[in-house]
Amino acid sequence: MKCEIIAVGTELLLGNIVNSNARYLSEKLAELGIDVHYHITVGDNMSRLKEAIELSLKRSDIIITTGGLGPTDDDLTKEGVAAALGLRLVPHEDSLQKIECYFKTSNRPMPECNKKQGYIPEGALVLENNNGTAPGVMVEKEDKLVILLPGPPKEMMPMFSEQVYPCLKAKSAFMIKSKTLRVVGVGESTIQELLQHIFDEQSNPTVAPYAKDGEVHLRITAKCQDEAEANRLLKEMEARITDILLDNVYGYDDESLEYIVYKLLEKNKMTVSIAESCTGGMISGRLTNVSGVSSVFTNAIVTYSNQAKMNFLKVQENTLRSHGAVSAETAEEMAKGIRQVSGTDVGISVTGIAGPEGGTAEKPVGLFYIGIAIGEKVEAHRYFFPASREKVRWNATTRALDILRRALL
Amino acid sequence: MKCEIIAVGTELLLGNIVNSNARYLSEKLAELGIDVHYHITVGDNMSRLKEAIELSLKRSDIIITTGGLGPTDDDLTKEGVAAALGLRLVPHEDSLQKIECYFKTSNRPMPECNKKQGYIPEGALVLENNNGTAPGVMVEKEDKLVILLPGPPKEMMPMFSEQVYPCLKAKSAFMIKSKTLRVVGVGESTIQELLQHIFDEQSNPTVAPYAKDGEVHLRITAKCQDEAEANRLLKEMEARITDILLDNVYGYDDESLEYIVYKLLEKNKMTVSIAESCTGGMISGRLTNVSGVSSVFTNAIVTYSNQAKMNFLKVQENTLRSHGAVSAETAEEMAKGIRQVSGTDVGISVTGIAGPEGGTAEKPVGLFYIGIAIGEKVEAHRYFFPASREKVRWNATTRALDILRRALL
Repeated sequence: MKCEIIAVGTELLLGNIVNSNARYLSEKLAELGIDVHYHITVGDNMSRLKEAIELSLKRSDIIITTGGLGPTDDDLTKEGVAAALGLRLVPHEDSLQKIECYFKTSNRPMPECNKKQGYIPEGALVLENNNGTAPGVMVEKEDKLVILLPGPPKEMMPMFSEQVYPCLKAKSAFMIKSKTLRVVGVGESTIQELLQHIFDEQSNPTVAPYAKDGEVHLRITAKCQDEAEANRLLKEMEARITDILLDNVYGYDDESLEYIVYKLLEKNKMTVSIAESCTGGMISGRLTNVSGVSSVFTNAIVTYSNQAKMNFLKVQENTLRSHGAVSAETAEEMAKGIRQVSGTDVGISVTGIAGPEGGTAEKPVGLFYIGIAIGEKVEAHRYFFPASREKVRWNATTRALDILRRALL
Repeated sequence: MKCEIIAVGTELLLGNIVNSNARYLSEKLAELGIDVHYHITVGDNMSRLKEAIELSLKRSDIIITTGGLGPTDDDLTKEGVAAALGLRLVPHEDSLQKIECYFKTSNRPMPECNKKQGYIPEGALVLENNNGTAPGVMVEKEDKLVILLPGPPKEMMPMFSEQVYPCLKAKSAFMIKSKTLRVVGVGESTIQELLQHIFDEQSNPTVAPYAKDGEVHLRITAKCQDEAEANRLLKEMEARITDILLDNVYGYDDESLEYIVYKLLEKNKMTVSIAESCTGGMISGRLTNVSGVSSVFTNAIVTYSNQAKMNFLKVQENTLRSHGAVSAETAEEMAKGIRQVSGTDVGISVTGIAGPEGGTAEKPVGLFYIGIAIGEKVEAHRYFFPASREKVRWNATTRALDILRRALL
């Protein structure tokens, strides 16, 4: 099966945003054994949009569009697809009601233009949007399948994975099964070296590394006739990799680092509190991404100033004066302090120089310390990753969660 | 002048990498007043590549390709362009010598296949690659200009900005200038209605709305002969929009909401502290994205449990019992409490139901309260935006920053 992905939106042609949807969809389609022959991006222009769809219909079996399903006059994808396929747009009662209901429950008047989102090409199937107002559409005509998805990745991705992927999977002749091993604490190039022999000899399953926000994800993909065979191949390869990377492999597939930390705390029946300085609330923010975390997490304190470190965490003035706010000693006192004032089993802390200002020769931008207190045991770890402010903060957050994870293993 | 950007590489169609080159080039071309009508991505396949180039040559004046200039058999862009234009590939002595020299200085033997990189379509101009071995190519034929750039962004971007940009600038008759107005507190469809007459009658400058993480960005773009005229058009349109949207317009271009809040605090010589429940540190995390924020921000406390709300923020047990943790009363006491324990001018608080668990008929998922205490004045605002956990938390964060902003105006 041949497929093309058409992104619709002038903002893409103006370079305002990058087309990350095409990457996501291509990866998923490759998993399904569906060949993607073209990515096309076209603006919010009816004649060019229609032309692009007509051309793709000639060349390919499946067309997936992203974007242009919004309520404004610029949103033309449904109109373009309907015109190219020679179909009328008709109202879809369930969708109209759902949009009205969305505005009613959020206690806002529904603008007239939002009605447009409840119209679909005749005979089409509606894909529900659980993260926005624009429903997706799936329409088949003469052996061609056209799938219309919304542009915002947060709406597009769940719609595709929950409603489109299973349907395309059923159409594919063989099966592809993947498993992702999530690795933290080892860099991409070290992993490349450690697994070089595996990368060199791979055929089925394949193994591909993806660097992602301070982690590396190893995707193992097996292509088989049946699931049992695929599972066997995945399991074997997973064992080979885990024998090398050991507990640096922290989770699988969609399991985030914060989710694993939550699960470990729950398993150990332990609670944690967090003291943050340079990360400014990001560790706590990430941990509370996990629904249900209140059983293991009670509170965090962001002590940005020295005064706050003393007031809230009982860090000694003398420690700050002799060693500075960014030091192993301060990190340890912060971890000990937050654990005590919160009455939790574990206390974790971060203090560092996120930059771009504030670095010195002795304490440069990218230096940070992570403190951890479990019972009476307190220790601090030193890290130095010079990078942008955003990256330093993110790395410190990941590192703190990982130290907590390793302490709980 | 009409332009198309063709990315060549199977790795893009497999979803291994995102096409960031198209975004970069589009942004630069928009600056030059050159209209980009399509982005195309095609694999390392001679017949599809040739077809794509032939189609683009029919539609546009300028074609820019990225990728496929390497030494391997898979690298076919020069061959495809030469075939589509009906030109032969001929050796280019300077380039051949430069490639040989590159290997000599890096003390490595030159693989035979690298010679291929020294061949160019007859009559073409060579673009020097100072960051790799693949030279770029610029070839003109019958009013069509085809520019071949390497795929790696680190090679492509300097080659484009240093050698191609000046040449295109000389060809462009006018200039394009943009300004983005950042709007918070009004939804995309309401903006659509409020500005409908402007959208309807726009020509120069144009105005385009982009929904972005709970905000709307309005991009005004003027196309003129000279900068003074562009500035005048932008200023006029900005005034028209601001007259309608008033102080919902919070900033311009790259100014984030947290940056504007920081600037207002600084201007008013005021400090803030933050008490978070359902947002779990995200407000504090966003505010501390801003470098230099320590002059206005001292600390935040994430009180996830009721006990923590009482211990750290002096919320009354009675308030929690009679009104619940998610209530205007608790939000007010949290804001008052954080301001007092932190000794800041302003205290801001959030408490809500992020979901997906924990909602009730009376207090459903998506309900949140924001409290603000300035001096002795305390108030709370109620919001209800049902959505995913992630979105509820993000919306509450944005809303809190916006309430703080409005209080400081």
